[in-house]
Amino acid sequence: MRAAILAVGTELLFGQTINTNAAYLSRELQNIGIDVMYHYTVGDNPKRLKELLNLAYRDVDLVITTGGLGPTQDDLTKEVVCEYFGEPLVEYKGYTKALEEHFKKAGYKWTDNNRKQAYFPLNSTILDNDIGTAPGIYLEKGGKAVATLPGPPREMTRMFQFKLKPILLKDSNDFIYYRILRTFGIGESSLETVLMPLIDKQTDPTIATYAKEGETSIRITSKRKSLEEAKAEVDSMIFKVNQIIGAHVYSYDDESLAEVVGKLLMKKNISIACCESCTGGLLAAALTEIPGISKVFNRGLVTYTYGAKEEELNVRPETLLKFTAESGEVCREMVEGLKGKTNCDFCISITGIAGPEDLSPEKPAGLAYIGIAYNGKTEIIEFKHRNVSRKWNRNYMLLNMLYEIYIRVK
Amino acid sequence: MRAAILAVGTELLFGQTINTNAAYLSRELQNIGIDVMYHYTVGDNPKRLKELLNLAYRDVDLVITTGGLGPTQDDLTKEVVCEYFGEPLVEYKGYTKALEEHFKKAGYKWTDNNRKQAYFPLNSTILDNDIGTAPGIYLEKGGKAVATLPGPPREMTRMFQFKLKPILLKDSNDFIYYRILRTFGIGESSLETVLMPLIDKQTDPTIATYAKEGETSIRITSKRKSLEEAKAEVDSMIFKVNQIIGAHVYSYDDESLAEVVGKLLMKKNISIACCESCTGGLLAAALTEIPGISKVFNRGLVTYTYGAKEEELNVRPETLLKFTAESGEVCREMVEGLKGKTNCDFCISITGIAGPEDLSPEKPAGLAYIGIAYNGKTEIIEFKHRNVSRKWNRNYMLLNMLYEIYIRVK
Repeated sequence: MRAAILAVGTELLFGQTINTNAAYLSRELQNIGIDVMYHYTVGDNPKRLKELLNLAYRDVDLVITTGGLGPTQDDLTKEVVCEYFGEPLVEYKGYTKALEEHFKKAGYKWTDNNRKQAYFPLNSTILDNDIGTAPGIYLEKGGKAVATLPGPPREMTRMFQFKLKPILLKDSNDFIYYRILRTFGIGESSLETVLMPLIDKQTDPTIATYAKEGETSIRITSKRKSLEEAKAEVDSMIFKVNQIIGAHVYSYDDESLAEVVGKLLMKKNISIACCESCTGGLLAAALTEIPGISKVFNRGLVTYTYGAKEEELNVRPETLLKFTAESGEVCREMVEGLKGKTNCDFCISITGIAGPEDLSPEKPAGLAYIGIAYNGKTEIIEFKHRNVSRKWNRNYMLLNMLYEIYIRVK
Repeated sequence: MRAAILAVGTELLFGQTINTNAAYLSRELQNIGIDVMYHYTVGDNPKRLKELLNLAYRDVDLVITTGGLGPTQDDLTKEVVCEYFGEPLVEYKGYTKALEEHFKKAGYKWTDNNRKQAYFPLNSTILDNDIGTAPGIYLEKGGKAVATLPGPPREMTRMFQFKLKPILLKDSNDFIYYRILRTFGIGESSLETVLMPLIDKQTDPTIATYAKEGETSIRITSKRKSLEEAKAEVDSMIFKVNQIIGAHVYSYDDESLAEVVGKLLMKKNISIACCESCTGGLLAAALTEIPGISKVFNRGLVTYTYGAKEEELNVRPETLLKFTAESGEVCREMVEGLKGKTNCDFCISITGIAGPEDLSPEKPAGLAYIGIAYNGKTEIIEFKHRNVSRKWNRNYMLLNMLYEIYIRVK
């Protein structure tokens, strides 16, 4: 099966929004054996939309649209697609009612333009939107299929996974199985270089690497006549990959480092407290993202000022004066103060220079100290990152903290 | 002038790479008065590439391609484009020599396939690549123009800015000016409904609304014969928009709520401290994202456990027992404890249920209490959100806190 992805939305043509949906859908469709031939983006314009549908169906069997399903005037994807297929839209009164109730419950004001979201072609499957108001449709006619998905990635991915994918899988004879390994501490090009002997030789399973903000993923995919066969192929390839870079792999199920760390702490019942200066609460926020973490997460302190470091953590004023806040010495007093205060099994501190400006030639943006009090000993680790941006630096510091926790509690 | 952006590359169709080039070029072209009508992505396939060129030129005067300029066999953008325009490629020997020298200097091994990068049509302008090996071309023929840019964003943006943009500016007669307003507390459909009288009447300036994770933006764009005229039109439209929904607008320059709040606090020198339960450090992390915030951000406390609330904030055990942590009563003691401890100008606390599970029928996920001690008084505000996901709930709670700060300090 061949597909095209058609994004509808002027905001994409203005460059205000980056089309991440196309990449997501492409990966997902690949995984279920559907080849993506084109991405198109077009504004909210019926004529151009129809021309692109025409062009697409010369080459593909399936068009997936994203965007233009909302209640407003310029949301016209569904209308144009149905006109193209010659399928009139009919109001599903039950849907209108459900929408009205949804609005009432959520405390939003009902405006009549929302009614348009309850119109569907009779011969289509409605793709419910569990977390938004605009439903999608799946429509097949004369050997052509179309699916309309909403634009917001959160709604789109969910609708694809739970509503559209099962429909697409029904027609497939191949079974695709894949696993995504996540690694830290090795760059994408190094990863590809060391895995090249495996990547080069293989047509199935395939191995692909992706880099994302300091973490690199490895996707191993097999397409076979049975699921068992595909699974066995993938697992045996994971074994080979592990022999080469196993030390860097922290998840075999595409989990984030924070998720892995949080689950480990909960599983092993290791209580944790953190105090952050340069990352300003990112570690606390990442850990508390995980449901159930209150079992082990005791507290987080964002001690930003000298005063906060002194009052909250008993950092001595003379240490701050002598070494500045961004030093291994202060980092040590921070984590010792935290341990003294909370007596948690795992205490971690960080101080450093988030940037974008260097503090001094000796203290450049990207320099950070991580302090760890665990298992009866206190360690201070110095990290130096190249200064990319304040946001990037802070995120990389967060990953470093998580990784230091990970290697100690795994 | 109207343009289409045509990305060439199988890695885009595999979803391995996200097409950020299209968004970048769209913004840049808008800014110099060129309307972008389409984005296309296609694999390294001559037939499909030519079909898309054909389609594009029915509607646009300029096609900008990205990708497919490299030395390898499947890099064929330039070849296909020139064939489409009927312009034969000729080797520029000087260029071949320069390339060879570049390789020697960089320590790369010269392979003969690199020679292909030194072939150009006689009637084109060569767009030098200052930081890569593949040059681009700009070609005009019979009222149609094409520019080929490399795929790597670093090379592409540079070539656009310094080589292509000056060529395009020579022919431009229109000036585009736009501003993006950001709002909170009003949904996209309500926003459009109240602005409809303005939206309906206008062809220039145009008004478009976009929703993104709880915030809604309004883009107001004008295209005129002079920049001053376009600016004046946009500003006068902002005045009209403000008369209708001014109370909801917190930025006229597309700034995030955290940015706006952080800048206000710094400008007015209002010191701030926060203590968070359900949001677990998100507010501290959002505020400390802003460079220079250490001037006013004193500290953040993530008091997750009962013990942490008692020890850090003097919340009374009996209040916790009687009302549970997720209550207005505890929220009040939290913010009072924080004020007593830090004496910051602005103290803010939050406690509630992040979810995904409800705590009880009376305490559903999405319920939160925000406590504010500011200007000599303490207020407790109850918020109820529909339960979407833990991540969404926490993000919306964060926006609510930021908005409550905003309306008090603006």
